[in-house]
Amino acid sequence: MSFRVAVLGATGAVGREMIKILEERDFPVSELLPLATERSAGSSIVFQGREITVTRVNAESFKGTDLALFSAGSAASRQYAHPAVTAGAIVIDNSSAFRQDPQVPLVIPEVNPEDLASHHGLIANPNCSTIQLVMVLKPIYDRFGLERIICSTYQSVSGTGNRAIAELREQSLAVLKGEPVASRVYPHQIAFNVLPHIDVLDADGYSFEEIKMINETRKILHDPVLWLNVTTVRVPVFYGHSESVYLETTKEADIAEIRSLLKSAPGVKVLDNPGQNLYPLAIMSERDDAVMVGRIRRDQVNRRGFNLWIVANNLRKGAALNAVQIAELVARKK
Amino acid sequence: MSFRVAVLGATGAVGREMIKILEERDFPVSELLPLATERSAGSSIVFQGREITVTRVNAESFKGTDLALFSAGSAASRQYAHPAVTAGAIVIDNSSAFRQDPQVPLVIPEVNPEDLASHHGLIANPNCSTIQLVMVLKPIYDRFGLERIICSTYQSVSGTGNRAIAELREQSLAVLKGEPVASRVYPHQIAFNVLPHIDVLDADGYSFEEIKMINETRKILHDPVLWLNVTTVRVPVFYGHSESVYLETTKEADIAEIRSLLKSAPGVKVLDNPGQNLYPLAIMSERDDAVMVGRIRRDQVNRRGFNLWIVANNLRKGAALNAVQIAELVARKK
Repeated sequence: MSFRVAVLGATGAVGREMIKILEERDFPVSELLPLATERSAGSSIVFQGREITVTRVNAESFKGTDLALFSAGSAASRQYAHPAVTAGAIVIDNSSAFRQDPQVPLVIPEVNPEDLASHHGLIANPNCSTIQLVMVLKPIYDRFGLERIICSTYQSVSGTGNRAIAELREQSLAVLKGEPVASRVYPHQIAFNVLPHIDVLDADGYSFEEIKMINETRKILHDPVLWLNVTTVRVPVFYGHSESVYLETTKEADIAEIRSLLKSAPGVKVLDNPGQNLYPLAIMSERDDAVMVGRIRRDQVNRRGFNLWIVANNLRKGAALNAVQIAELVARKK
Repeated sequence: MSFRVAVLGATGAVGREMIKILEERDFPVSELLPLATERSAGSSIVFQGREITVTRVNAESFKGTDLALFSAGSAASRQYAHPAVTAGAIVIDNSSAFRQDPQVPLVIPEVNPEDLASHHGLIANPNCSTIQLVMVLKPIYDRFGLERIICSTYQSVSGTGNRAIAELREQSLAVLKGEPVASRVYPHQIAFNVLPHIDVLDADGYSFEEIKMINETRKILHDPVLWLNVTTVRVPVFYGHSESVYLETTKEADIAEIRSLLKSAPGVKVLDNPGQNLYPLAIMSERDDAVMVGRIRRDQVNRRGFNLWIVANNLRKGAALNAVQIAELVARKK
């Protein structure tokens, strides 16, 4: 059995990874249909050694398509997801457009694959920062319960897309040469700076990225009152999001138990040897698809308090890989 | 009245700022004595338009000196602080060597100037990350009490010194050119990466920087059981430390009250207008000596929980400026 697969946003940072991962994982593709909104239609991508022209998307694009991976932003998802489903495709959407829709399962294959059963043609892929956090929280939550999570992120520019990668590169060179810095993608200089601002900042002081992490974690863990406090921050890194996490378990837990739980969690890798300066690093995620966790330690005051440092590749496990893993589960049921 | 002032570590990143700030603030210097350990003795610094040769420090260097500002690392402080005090100097030490010594006051002039009264010739300057945190905590602590503080830092490389500044510059250029990266100062690449590791990592998983922030905050606030949980992280930024802080007050507090308290706190500046993308940035600290605070918001669950984003120049208010402010208080009492 093989599938006609459309990728909307095929030239974006995530779309390119989707196509690469479909190939890497030998996903059974009978035909690949790379789609884009106006800007990059007409360019081309390479899949299984063949160059394929990127077509401009329209409501008719999805006729005869079995699976459609969307990563062209919320507006494009709102416009094309339902037409694609009506045309018979199962849509896996990487935007935030439908993540909180009760009709749409929000899935991390290692965490809540059972939620896929209830889909109506549309499945949402969680936010990058949510995926790596929940991959680590889930085994702890199941075994010890979680009272609260306090998280500060260190997110790379590739989460914003190709133009942000170019902006970090250009600004960095400008700073190193002592030349003036131009900001087009971000509201402030990102090179050699830190921006406590991801996505839209609301008047109440929260950013939409923070709200997404809170609400998505609750939905994936089926715990609508789970207590999360999140601060999302952009750092001058190209690839890989890092997270500083403090959590409190409900039942008393042991460091050794937590470490061993995480060691056996699917898709998670424990890198934690302080004496050898071993801990997860953003640059490691360029060559490793695992969600990496280290700096595991107990709070000095609260015996049920623990700190963790979590790193993953935001374009792969945080987006494209998770979407293709969902596609694999869907394909298995067809 | 004017003073013979020695600066030990005169060519270091902090030492240079100390000399600059003595000049900027018209500190009454009758003679400036720049000292260094072996490596940079013989080079020179400029003070009030005059070039002065840097002398190699020895136990006799401090004869006839009124004030000595130390910033040449803990080993040098352990070796020379007591000889300097014996020679009659008042030593203001920026290393961590004596910060936890009960005989040595640990002082932020805006926070606990009264502690200076008990000095025996030796006064400790707190850690950079501690200073900016406590500057903001203090007014909240006094008015509402603090139950707990959970902090993740985003620290610049200048905190490590001149060689780290050069390393970030060289590595960044190498990455941008696609050339191999050499790490000499840090155990891993810092350019376009994030290191959850500052100072020595203990076998129990804590870094010495984290322990310093916890213990110093408790000492400065005279609250030996204050509950702090800290994760210290190095980011590829040249100047300015940022901190993501979650805190819980003892008494119920209002956002407007916290904002107004911070607005009137000496040395603190509130930059908090999410609608205008206004919040503190590391690069702002290159031109502003204030401890800047923004992204002030209430936790979604706990009414006594608040988030803050705190930024300051780690070489100036975090080190050299705080030391010179201590010197000013000492001078006033002479």
